[in-house]
Amino acid sequence: MSETTGKTTKTSTPSPSEVEEALVRKVIASFDGCTDERLKELLTSLVKHLHDFITDVRLTETEWNSAIEFLTQVGHITDDRRQEFILLSDVLGASMQTINVSNLPYKDATEATVFGPFFVDDAPLIDNGGDIAGGGIGQPCWVEGVVRDTEGNPIPGARLEVWEADEDGLYDVQHDDGRVYGRAHLFADEAGAFRFWGLTPTPYPIPDDGPVGNMLAATGRSPMRASHLHFMVTAPNKRTLVTHIFVEGDELLTSDSVFGVKDSLIKKFEQQPAGTPTPDGRDLGGEAWSRTRFDIVLAPEGV
Amino acid sequence: MSETTGKTTKTSTPSPSEVEEALVRKVIASFDGCTDERLKELLTSLVKHLHDFITDVRLTETEWNSAIEFLTQVGHITDDRRQEFILLSDVLGASMQTINVSNLPYKDATEATVFGPFFVDDAPLIDNGGDIAGGGIGQPCWVEGVVRDTEGNPIPGARLEVWEADEDGLYDVQHDDGRVYGRAHLFADEAGAFRFWGLTPTPYPIPDDGPVGNMLAATGRSPMRASHLHFMVTAPNKRTLVTHIFVEGDELLTSDSVFGVKDSLIKKFEQQPAGTPTPDGRDLGGEAWSRTRFDIVLAPEGV
Repeated sequence: MSETTGKTTKTSTPSPSEVEEALVRKVIASFDGCTDERLKELLTSLVKHLHDFITDVRLTETEWNSAIEFLTQVGHITDDRRQEFILLSDVLGASMQTINVSNLPYKDATEATVFGPFFVDDAPLIDNGGDIAGGGIGQPCWVEGVVRDTEGNPIPGARLEVWEADEDGLYDVQHDDGRVYGRAHLFADEAGAFRFWGLTPTPYPIPDDGPVGNMLAATGRSPMRASHLHFMVTAPNKRTLVTHIFVEGDELLTSDSVFGVKDSLIKKFEQQPAGTPTPDGRDLGGEAWSRTRFDIVLAPEGV
Repeated sequence: MSETTGKTTKTSTPSPSEVEEALVRKVIASFDGCTDERLKELLTSLVKHLHDFITDVRLTETEWNSAIEFLTQVGHITDDRRQEFILLSDVLGASMQTINVSNLPYKDATEATVFGPFFVDDAPLIDNGGDIAGGGIGQPCWVEGVVRDTEGNPIPGARLEVWEADEDGLYDVQHDDGRVYGRAHLFADEAGAFRFWGLTPTPYPIPDDGPVGNMLAATGRSPMRASHLHFMVTAPNKRTLVTHIFVEGDELLTSDSVFGVKDSLIKKFEQQPAGTPTPDGRDLGGEAWSRTRFDIVLAPEGV
């Protein structure tokens, strides 16, 4: 407008970037008295990046209002059984990026991926070679492997927590009745080897009837997760490994809604026609089954 | 560790930054199908800055968990009367930065500041020269000024909404009983002039009994706002002005908890000893009072 009126803008008017940068400095300085150095570092960086976002996109007041309303909805749908903030972090890749920076690549250590919201602490103990299905429905799947360290030594007694959805795409905890299926823990044998029966993983959507689902729909994204089986593997003096294995050939591998897929975690699940003898002589009553192998390498603690 | 064992790290191991950058690209690409170009722009920038934050600070999984828990608390305390997400945005300066980018400096137009959560739509109408106190307690304050455009022309009939806390530091809507005080709207006269009685502004804390208050306490920050009086001024073909005036000499001017203070908005509130004649002949019963002047300049719409 000043160009069209021909009048000169007062030289005292600060430039937009001067005003914006001065504000960022003021907000950061407000944390000068914070005696927790790490908290100060986190908030200083958060303020810097949050303000960079606002100034980069030239956020409008209407958009700011929409963001407040969206976060309010995320907060209100969240309860003890539904964690929409984790879903939000997941679909923005923030959960996976946190996993990345917390689990740096180390030699041939198995890569980590997202933890997800469906782990429970007190899953049943099974013998090595037992069945985690616990009545969950789906095609039986034989899973075996060896847990080793990055020097190639087996890790006897390594603890494995495994959990997965059934063929309907639901974890046990998504039912209201306290049932337990598709989860267990077991221990590797003296040679670091483990084996168990589970269910052949199938794809499922993350809960998409809330604000995060609305965001996915508004942006043309699918809520589907690639088929996977969860592992958490622990052993003394080793970095805890939280990961999944994925099913080779699954068409969702390239569009996993939470960005959990890593190439090294994609495994061949070999279909076995009905009647194929099972590794442990179990009689599946003529049902088809699958088998896969997952050899696990744990990094040392503290890397 | 690889240095101490003397073994060579496999060349196939991707570097941390390669893994992190690849993830950011993958998340951004997930919005390729978004047909709303502005939404795509907003989410792309959000993802970029969010991931920059996580990788810059090397966010730990424990810290990520704390962030999820914090946001969950913010969500759960928020209801129709309490908006903790707005408070969070306010104390991080995000609200003020949004105001900055949405209200660029224009000639000598009056600067904007934060809207705050205490405006209501249906405040009483008063005559020019009337009283907004409505029974709210505090020292009477005479406020006057002229509304002009950036060419210096008065704007007859400009609408002014004014609102403020009482001397206890509470707005009417912070009580549970529907009472109305400390707010009104009025119209400028034919010369663009306005005048009204209000209350001399006093400092107050933002609500600090929730997670945002806890964050302020943990970082050594005060919840106090500098004393202020809110204005929203509208007129045809003019940019709506949302602003405050602040009290010269208030020691909180440099530490306002929501970063709303701008130098141009600090006004002299002149104390008038008891018995000083009032501008409109009102009898204050021997009470002391104050007076201030706020001349307002509205930018054209669309700048």
